[in-house]
Amino acid sequence: MSQSLTFLNPNSVAIIGASKDPTKRGFRAIQTLLQEKFAGAIFPINPKEAEILGLPCYPDLASVTGEIDLALICTPARTLPAMVQACGEKGVRGAVVLAGGFSEAGEAGARLEQEMVTAARQFGVRLVGPNTSGMFNTHKACNLVGFSNLQPGGLGILSQSGNMALSLVTEGQINGHMGFSTYIGVGNEADLQFSEYLDYFAEDEQTKVVIAYVEGLKDGRAFLDSARRACLKKPVVLYKSGRTEVGQSSAKSHTGALAGSYGVAKGALQQAGVTVVSQSDQILSVAEALALLPPPPSKRIAILADGGGHATIAADALTEQGMLLPRLSQETRERLAAILPPAAALANPVDVAGGTDANPEVFADCAEVILADPNVDALLIVGLFGGYAIRFSETLRAIENHTASRLGGMIERFEKPLLLQSLYAPMRTEALVTLRAAGVPVHESVETAVRCLVLLAEYGAARSRIAAATVPSAAEANAAATSIITNARQEGRSSLLEHEAQALLRSYDISLPPSVLITTPEALAQARQQFGDVPLAMKVVSKDILHKSDAKAVQLNVNGEAEMQQAYAAIMDNSRAYRADADIKGVLATPMARKGGVEMIIGVTRDPQFGPIMMFGLGGIFVEVLKDVVFRSLPLTAVDAAEMLDEIKAKAILGGVRGAPPVDREAIIDLMLRISRVCQAHPEIVELDLNPILGYADGYALVDARMILG
Amino acid sequence: MSQSLTFLNPNSVAIIGASKDPTKRGFRAIQTLLQEKFAGAIFPINPKEAEILGLPCYPDLASVTGEIDLALICTPARTLPAMVQACGEKGVRGAVVLAGGFSEAGEAGARLEQEMVTAARQFGVRLVGPNTSGMFNTHKACNLVGFSNLQPGGLGILSQSGNMALSLVTEGQINGHMGFSTYIGVGNEADLQFSEYLDYFAEDEQTKVVIAYVEGLKDGRAFLDSARRACLKKPVVLYKSGRTEVGQSSAKSHTGALAGSYGVAKGALQQAGVTVVSQSDQILSVAEALALLPPPPSKRIAILADGGGHATIAADALTEQGMLLPRLSQETRERLAAILPPAAALANPVDVAGGTDANPEVFADCAEVILADPNVDALLIVGLFGGYAIRFSETLRAIENHTASRLGGMIERFEKPLLLQSLYAPMRTEALVTLRAAGVPVHESVETAVRCLVLLAEYGAARSRIAAATVPSAAEANAAATSIITNARQEGRSSLLEHEAQALLRSYDISLPPSVLITTPEALAQARQQFGDVPLAMKVVSKDILHKSDAKAVQLNVNGEAEMQQAYAAIMDNSRAYRADADIKGVLATPMARKGGVEMIIGVTRDPQFGPIMMFGLGGIFVEVLKDVVFRSLPLTAVDAAEMLDEIKAKAILGGVRGAPPVDREAIIDLMLRISRVCQAHPEIVELDLNPILGYADGYALVDARMILG
Repeated sequence: MSQSLTFLNPNSVAIIGASKDPTKRGFRAIQTLLQEKFAGAIFPINPKEAEILGLPCYPDLASVTGEIDLALICTPARTLPAMVQACGEKGVRGAVVLAGGFSEAGEAGARLEQEMVTAARQFGVRLVGPNTSGMFNTHKACNLVGFSNLQPGGLGILSQSGNMALSLVTEGQINGHMGFSTYIGVGNEADLQFSEYLDYFAEDEQTKVVIAYVEGLKDGRAFLDSARRACLKKPVVLYKSGRTEVGQSSAKSHTGALAGSYGVAKGALQQAGVTVVSQSDQILSVAEALALLPPPPSKRIAILADGGGHATIAADALTEQGMLLPRLSQETRERLAAILPPAAALANPVDVAGGTDANPEVFADCAEVILADPNVDALLIVGLFGGYAIRFSETLRAIENHTASRLGGMIERFEKPLLLQSLYAPMRTEALVTLRAAGVPVHESVETAVRCLVLLAEYGAARSRIAAATVPSAAEANAAATSIITNARQEGRSSLLEHEAQALLRSYDISLPPSVLITTPEALAQARQQFGDVPLAMKVVSKDILHKSDAKAVQLNVNGEAEMQQAYAAIMDNSRAYRADADIKGVLATPMARKGGVEMIIGVTRDPQFGPIMMFGLGGIFVEVLKDVVFRSLPLTAVDAAEMLDEIKAKAILGGVRGAPPVDREAIIDLMLRISRVCQAHPEIVELDLNPILGYADGYALVDARMILG
Repeated sequence: MSQSLTFLNPNSVAIIGASKDPTKRGFRAIQTLLQEKFAGAIFPINPKEAEILGLPCYPDLASVTGEIDLALICTPARTLPAMVQACGEKGVRGAVVLAGGFSEAGEAGARLEQEMVTAARQFGVRLVGPNTSGMFNTHKACNLVGFSNLQPGGLGILSQSGNMALSLVTEGQINGHMGFSTYIGVGNEADLQFSEYLDYFAEDEQTKVVIAYVEGLKDGRAFLDSARRACLKKPVVLYKSGRTEVGQSSAKSHTGALAGSYGVAKGALQQAGVTVVSQSDQILSVAEALALLPPPPSKRIAILADGGGHATIAADALTEQGMLLPRLSQETRERLAAILPPAAALANPVDVAGGTDANPEVFADCAEVILADPNVDALLIVGLFGGYAIRFSETLRAIENHTASRLGGMIERFEKPLLLQSLYAPMRTEALVTLRAAGVPVHESVETAVRCLVLLAEYGAARSRIAAATVPSAAEANAAATSIITNARQEGRSSLLEHEAQALLRSYDISLPPSVLITTPEALAQARQQFGDVPLAMKVVSKDILHKSDAKAVQLNVNGEAEMQQAYAAIMDNSRAYRADADIKGVLATPMARKGGVEMIIGVTRDPQFGPIMMFGLGGIFVEVLKDVVFRSLPLTAVDAAEMLDEIKAKAILGGVRGAPPVDREAIIDLMLRISRVCQAHPEIVELDLNPILGYADGYALVDARMILG
């Protein structure tokens, strides 16, 4: 699919709305292309001019004799349908539409946007924007956005904010990061969408990592599919903004109310292999580290420091984020002892204790020894390296540079990531520039260096998980379930009654406690017989009574037939008192669930961005007060489900606390997978709540099930 | 007390161990003092040299005729006791001891350190160090640490790591932050301690904010006292490292096991008004912002942006950290509408929508309008300001500078903080330098700017709280409680039995359910009568059976005399079976607590750094699994207690969830204050656990009380 976007790598560009006015984009774009020596042809288009900046100007596209790969359209919104048509007729494959005044500006604009897209589809033109800051492709020297001093490199940017792109480019220039490949300002996504650009970047050889700044996704589902493919080839680093916006307001169920949140986006994106960065000031550093370094096989990190302060900060930050600081092997410690002074710390962190002051090459000797240790997956060097010539003696400059080259070579040799934090990083000393050129990321902040390592490890794990995953096969709807849904719809209901929801789940071999819908007092005796002598729960079944407890239409621990009669009468009386005209189907009786289970909740909702999403959490206070829930998009794999159980903060409770046995993980994972298949098979189920589920050492009990139809 | 440390502001310095070897500190220190034009006298001391760097060299201190305020001692550890004595005899008030090889290097070193301190006390010399990187005082041009290019300014540094100080100074230089006043490397704190330096900084007029890098405090209690005083005068910004170290291993109780953690330090330090920074890369930015800006009266922040991206990131970050984005008043919006183009966003964030492109002074016009709004406590400007001359047109340079000056004047005029984030911050453009000089902090990172605002608001709140607090009066021990403790000790016990702990608490008017210690089966009937017809809890009282449940020595819901007899017998039998030789005092009977209470835990422990510390949390799973607990040092004020209730993550539960009424806050706060007084009155109680406490809408029930004696 990326083949259709070859115009993003153009050999010729037309500037529609070219201008002689230096304040206009139609002038500045041409000026920039000329200054930066765009290798292809430039065709200014303007019927009123004969030449601009020494280039012949054409009255229209049709007058151009050569081929045009890409058009930058600088004319106002109202001209766009005609301009796009002209592009199509000329055979221009893609156009970048700068103008605003489309769907972002109200209804008239939205109609104009639709008209433009219709023209684009009809005449075979793909559109970037409208309402975009533009694009650039440094490897073609094609800068159609006007950022200055662009350095070519491996960072691709996909952004919903032109200023954020400018911010990243400026930060990269100032701090001497890796350069950039292609930038695309997605604008209104009238035609081309995030997912399609992502597919393009995944194939683009110049791009080593994709950076995405996302405020909202028009089609999150397509983005997840593209991300899953892309992350097998290169990392996708994403910052999601707008994360404190109020969620879906129209949610009808508990699950719905909690969805639409940053948690949903984060869960779904990480599931698809995306590296989600939570601080905007770490985007570029993380992207560069992921572009340069191989992910570590696991989380065992060694620290090499020339001072206790930075070593301690790094150790704290790594530990707080779940990384491990393994003890170095006996052999490693002996080898380090032979290199370092007696006061050196040979545990992990390794502190050289002045052992590098006179000879910074000792860093390289130590790094070699540490990286060779099979207990170590990655090395973080913190402190003063890169500033020895400044701090200690100018005579150390050459040694420091040589050390930097040696360190650089170690990443490939040991196939392990190596990062360096230096308080001299912003000074971009010779040694640090050498180090970066040799592929070692250099950071000023210990916290940022640590974050890079953590996300690198997570990227490696996600990539392996996705590479190994088999996509769950499409689930087929069974006849029993379909007829339950059809029946509810025929009765004009948008939700299933509890016994219907139960029957539907049973039809997919999901285990539920036995239950009987009792429609007359006479049927009580038979129900009693069926269940044997166990306490029962009884509750009203009525589409008009959603909050059964409020209506006092639930009776628990009902024993024996006499109590059943009383409970039945009470439920019917209370229900009628609560709502006289309620359509009551009957009373559902079911044995009380075993005591001692762990309350859990599984919910499915349709997220406006990501489609069907499953939520998992512990029930009751954990979900209501602590919002301790995690999300994944459907369909779910077994690994996804297992990760969800491990991701909640209170996960220790599933493992058994206060002498309780662990919850039957396999059974819960199996339930989640079955629910995923149910929702796949029946897209008409738009919300589903299993709340609570009681988890036991052996199996679980589904105490309540609700389903809402779309 | 700070008067005794006037030597940190010296007019004359002796260098003991002065040297002609350029690699030696005894040479470099003199070289630096000369280069940087130290205003006072410099006395090199070395019996083997006649002059060093053109200065006459003295064989010993006694040979110097002038007064010496401060000695920098560069000689090896073993010489120190004699050198310190010589200082005292010469009347030198303070010495900076560089040498290592003292208490950090084992027992012999510790003895040497003690000998040196003894000499110091005897001869009236105060010591910085030993094992310190040194100190500087820029306002005297007295640089005894050898950092280069020190800029004088308002930032004072107190650090346990020389490299961290170097890191801060280097960062400040590179990024153009406010300069530094005095740095002290505390070293081993053999004599002078953190708290004393803090007192000095609090009084030092050159220091506007104190930065402390702390790995561990020898006397945390004294530090808290100093911090409480200091924070009324200036902010104290502290980074605590070593926070993932394993806590106290010898803790005997539940509370003890959770203490000794970063949570304890954070709770106690923030209580004392310290601004605790959790990321090392934000220390300097936070310190500068707190030095420059008045704290906002409350948390209502306005954002002014020239692009949607940064505005959204700032809004997210502020909201996530509890700040409020108020709606601007009608008047403000009308005034902004008159300044900005129609597409501008006039809610909060305010987005100028290109309205500043041609004239950045519009920023100043908007800022003026926004700061005048009574709904706004502080303003954060984000985006491109400072880079308009680069991004748009060189012709804007003068306007941009003028705008910067105008913005600077607004802080004082409106008495509200104003911060600016600019993606051009690292370029230190003219406008940004002007802005900083005018007192407006400039940040590259949106997240850092937001963090500064959050911590500024917290500092303001803490300062007001501490200024208003009356120190709890000393609590006196009552005779009943003292005799209970004396009795336990006489019996050779290091813990109180439950009925003793209850009696002790009752003697301080703490409400407990009635209880009776039953020592013979015959006494059961009387107990029954005393309680009336309510279900009882009965449990063994024995110093030898700490885990009563494990011993099956607890019986709950005991009704009527017959059941009491059975329960009594069972408890005695089970206790003997559990431990045949157990010293059993009897069985404690108490009415069962009311149902429906919220389980809480209050604990007191002695932290090795901060002394008596109270922990508060919700009981059960919240404390065991989620570690949702907060800490404060004792004595506690009512405001401290109220903050503790509000600081736990699950605080909503105290407010009443799932239809439950709110817990009686006043009663719980009263209990916490009484417990604080008990522990003040009886320092021999080293650990105390009230677990669980059941909180009700009216009052609470203390179900279990444990006390450990020191």
